[in-house]
Amino acid sequence: MNVEILCVGTEILLGNIVNTNTAYLAKRCADLGLGMYYQGVVGDNEERLEEAIEQALKRSDVLILSGGLGPTNDDITKETVAKVLGLELVFDQESFDNMDMMLKKLGHANYPLINNKQAYIPEGARALKNNNGTAPGIFIETNKTKAKNKYPEKIVALLPGPPLELKPMFEEYLAPFFKEATGEVIYSKMLKMIGIGEGAAADRIKDILINSKNPTVAPYAKINEVHFRITAKAKDETEALSLIAPVYEQIKNELGEYIYSEDEDETLQSVVVKKAKEKGLRLATAESCTGGLVAGAIIDVSGASDCFDEGFITYSNNAKVKTIEVSEETLKKYGAVSKECAMEMAKKAAIKARADVAVSTTGIAGPTGATKDKPVGRVYIGVYSKGEAKAFEFNFKGTREIVRTRSVVNALNILRKEIENY
Amino acid sequence: MNVEILCVGTEILLGNIVNTNTAYLAKRCADLGLGMYYQGVVGDNEERLEEAIEQALKRSDVLILSGGLGPTNDDITKETVAKVLGLELVFDQESFDNMDMMLKKLGHANYPLINNKQAYIPEGARALKNNNGTAPGIFIETNKTKAKNKYPEKIVALLPGPPLELKPMFEEYLAPFFKEATGEVIYSKMLKMIGIGEGAAADRIKDILINSKNPTVAPYAKINEVHFRITAKAKDETEALSLIAPVYEQIKNELGEYIYSEDEDETLQSVVVKKAKEKGLRLATAESCTGGLVAGAIIDVSGASDCFDEGFITYSNNAKVKTIEVSEETLKKYGAVSKECAMEMAKKAAIKARADVAVSTTGIAGPTGATKDKPVGRVYIGVYSKGEAKAFEFNFKGTREIVRTRSVVNALNILRKEIENY
Repeated sequence: MNVEILCVGTEILLGNIVNTNTAYLAKRCADLGLGMYYQGVVGDNEERLEEAIEQALKRSDVLILSGGLGPTNDDITKETVAKVLGLELVFDQESFDNMDMMLKKLGHANYPLINNKQAYIPEGARALKNNNGTAPGIFIETNKTKAKNKYPEKIVALLPGPPLELKPMFEEYLAPFFKEATGEVIYSKMLKMIGIGEGAAADRIKDILINSKNPTVAPYAKINEVHFRITAKAKDETEALSLIAPVYEQIKNELGEYIYSEDEDETLQSVVVKKAKEKGLRLATAESCTGGLVAGAIIDVSGASDCFDEGFITYSNNAKVKTIEVSEETLKKYGAVSKECAMEMAKKAAIKARADVAVSTTGIAGPTGATKDKPVGRVYIGVYSKGEAKAFEFNFKGTREIVRTRSVVNALNILRKEIENY
Repeated sequence: MNVEILCVGTEILLGNIVNTNTAYLAKRCADLGLGMYYQGVVGDNEERLEEAIEQALKRSDVLILSGGLGPTNDDITKETVAKVLGLELVFDQESFDNMDMMLKKLGHANYPLINNKQAYIPEGARALKNNNGTAPGIFIETNKTKAKNKYPEKIVALLPGPPLELKPMFEEYLAPFFKEATGEVIYSKMLKMIGIGEGAAADRIKDILINSKNPTVAPYAKINEVHFRITAKAKDETEALSLIAPVYEQIKNELGEYIYSEDEDETLQSVVVKKAKEKGLRLATAESCTGGLVAGAIIDVSGASDCFDEGFITYSNNAKVKTIEVSEETLKKYGAVSKECAMEMAKKAAIKARADVAVSTTGIAGPTGATKDKPVGRVYIGVYSKGEAKAFEFNFKGTREIVRTRSVVNALNILRKEIENY
């Protein structure tokens, strides 16, 4: 089963947004064992979109379109697909109700009529409920519509452009459909690592990466994380698991110390919260250069209230002294960007918040603020538990955003290790 | 002059890398006033690549290919372009010398012969020196080659796949070529709005959206933001600006109240910091459901220390009472998720941090935590300045992530307005 992806949107043609939807869809299709030979982008232009859809229907089994489902006159994807397939657009009550509810929830009680355009779907198509926006997705099996003679055995799926709408819709409707359609079991195991670069990790298991055909092993570099996915195709789950097992063991032997999760859905912060809850520990944060993002990541996890009461954003020296009682002497002697200050911030935050484990950040995110001794990217991360404080020095390279993101990831990882060893 | 971009690489089809090259090239082409109707991706497969090249040469004036110029057997872009155009590959001494030098510099003195493949270019083409890698780029004006009869007046440019090689090569060779070729200036103006949906905003200026040809007006929906870009083509900047002015005035008359910035590079948080600094105001935050992300966004802005000392993440009721002294009575009477609590959080945070303006968030991000009266997505945002506290109720729809993101955006916007009216 070959899939073709076609993104619709002048903003992609103009380079105003990076086409992450295609990367997401492509990766998920690969995970599901689907082939892919073409990806394309066209603007909000009926004629060219029509041609692109016709071409895709000739050469691919499945066409996934993203974008152009919104309420404006620029949004023509649905209309053009219906035209190519020779289908009328019909009113869909459920889509209307969902749209109506979403708009009202967003505070638009008297929304303009133009929005109603979103409640129409091609006859014979299935509307895919959008839990995160107003435009439904659309799923067409041509054999179930009037288009079956002209385009037999084709699947056409239309997904909304915003990634926060597209991704859950793919997972809820398309992934299960493809799983069933291929009749093969694709089973994969994820190994999520932190503390080692992609190149170094790949080098240590290069024989496995090159020689493994079923299962395959593919690396995915994230910011400061490396994920490896082991994927097997098989008749059933038992066979897939037995194909995966030896490769999994080999990778674990080589890189086990860096693995923080083997669960597809876990993030570094969800592991932090899970392990803290398991051990009944309460956490706290004291942040300077990360300005609340470490706490923000922890609270990102539903149920974080079971292990997190409060955090302190002490950006200025004055706030460090006044709010969490870092001593003025420490600041004077070592400066705010120092191991000593990081340790004291973690300790005082733990005491103040009555937490078992606390983590702190202080550093120079840049682009300004560097001193002779302390370059941009110098960050200290402190951690405190059981009466003892430690701090780690980092020298990150890159923009302010990169320095801060890496600081957050490393702070969470240090916190995770401290919880595990508690 | 219409450009088409074609990226060659199975790793993009598999979603292993995000196609940032296309976004870069597209944006630069738009800056240079070039049209673009198509972007595509094909794998390292000769037949499909051949078809895609032929199609592009039929419908576009310029074809930019990226990727597939390396030394391995998988790298077939140059060979396939030469085949389609009917050109022989000929040895290019300068490309060989550059490759030889680069490989030796990288410590590969005895590199395998297969590398020499990189020193061949189609006859009549121009090699583009690669200062950051081994494979030269290739620039073909078909009129200067044997392909002039079959494909007259076409430009075909082949760039290496690695972004660090592609970008400088585009800037050094292609950008100057296109600038001279078009003789046109493209000038655009951005209007960034918040507090109105894309549909509603588009509806209010629908005549402008439909009727404006030069300048064009295009909407871009972001999370809780709508951006409109007005773009004019003209002989020079003065003419472009005078084309833009009346359309700009019309949009501003209709939607001015929602505009928070007209600057391409500004974000909501950078406007908050800029305006606070202009007025010499100090800011503070007290966050519950957003858990530090509002402060994190403010500190995202370089120089935020000029207006921000500290913030409080008071996730539990206890933290609200203990750290910023929200009264137990307020919590008992109205609950933590209430207007009253939001107002008190903002007020107490301002007092505690000695700030002029403070913003607070408290709400139910979900998926759990809803009560009979307060559904998931109910968020109160408080703001305090000059002795007066206010709070606004929101009912966001969507995942925990969406509720939190929208809370952050709205908190920043409320803070921005408070600063502007200070």
